[in-house]
Amino acid sequence: MNGHELLQKHISKTVTLSDDVFEYVLSHFKEQHFTKGQTIISAGDKVQHEYFVVAGCLKSFYINEDVKMFILQFSMPNWWASDFEALYSGEKAKIHVDCIADATVLALSNEDREKLCREIHEMEHFFRWRTNKGYVATQKRLLSFMNNNAKQRYEELLTQYPQLYNLVPKHLIAAYLGVSRETLSRL
Amino acid sequence: MNGHELLQKHISKTVTLSDDVFEYVLSHFKEQHFTKGQTIISAGDKVQHEYFVVAGCLKSFYINEDVKMFILQFSMPNWWASDFEALYSGEKAKIHVDCIADATVLALSNEDREKLCREIHEMEHFFRWRTNKGYVATQKRLLSFMNNNAKQRYEELLTQYPQLYNLVPKHLIAAYLGVSRETLSRL
Repeated sequence: MNGHELLQKHISKTVTLSDDVFEYVLSHFKEQHFTKGQTIISAGDKVQHEYFVVAGCLKSFYINEDVKMFILQFSMPNWWASDFEALYSGEKAKIHVDCIADATVLALSNEDREKLCREIHEMEHFFRWRTNKGYVATQKRLLSFMNNNAKQRYEELLTQYPQLYNLVPKHLIAAYLGVSRETLSRL
Repeated sequence: MNGHELLQKHISKTVTLSDDVFEYVLSHFKEQHFTKGQTIISAGDKVQHEYFVVAGCLKSFYINEDVKMFILQFSMPNWWASDFEALYSGEKAKIHVDCIADATVLALSNEDREKLCREIHEMEHFFRWRTNKGYVATQKRLLSFMNNNAKQRYEELLTQYPQLYNLVPKHLIAAYLGVSRETLSRL
């Protein structure tokens, strides 16, 4: 499935658009290709786009003062990635986004998302529900961190991304769970 | 300021509605009064409403298997509270919401929110941005938990809710920060 078909199928799970309207929506996205290890967003950048993943896998991560890495999200096909705090507020990025594997994405600018939401009520509905789902997923992840339950986080991760275990190096899975590699191997 | 005025001012920060349209929107909200300690949502409940806080203060919290309490959110006037995961999915509540102080809220049902979003494009825009802000706030909170930085969480809390320190018992602030009362008194 190419990027256009994947995006159309993804949007159509939430709203119904005619082919003509979808083509118009699509005309605001730009296909981009990145290679494994390549950076899409660095902390300190001005962030102007969000990315719909068509192929490959991205990671969104934070590096603290002790140069320790915390992974916020893995983004596989059909997921969206960005530093949304920076994108929405106009402040500089606090997190990094790079590629765990060669990746194809469809980039949408902040301005074009707002334009599409203004012009097409269905797109405003689509983006509202996309964020609703992201909000709920982040809250679930926060609860399992507060509860300090690494086993639960591990099970949630495998449910959310069943194909991830073979795709992603173990030290990155540990950085997502917030545990050491030793703890991960016990889980 | 009464509940109607507070809600109108709150919505008008994001979108412009005529007085007639606002009156129509308002007709979908029901004013409710709760006393200190009263429960609004219990884990296991079917959740059908979200609540705009007009007066008082609510807490949203999770109780784990060891009967330890984790506070997800304090909701002061102009904040919204619910178990959004349960509200959006139709599953049973996992968290509790109760009143730290006598509270007045405006309750909106899931169905009426979707109806307003369908009928009034501006309201879909309003609710999209409300969730965008909630998503970003939750992600910030997740990052400071991953980073295990209680001091940063404490400073974020005081920035977000400057009036909270005098309003909320210290053991609840500790449960929000995920630290012991002893650690809180050192911060």
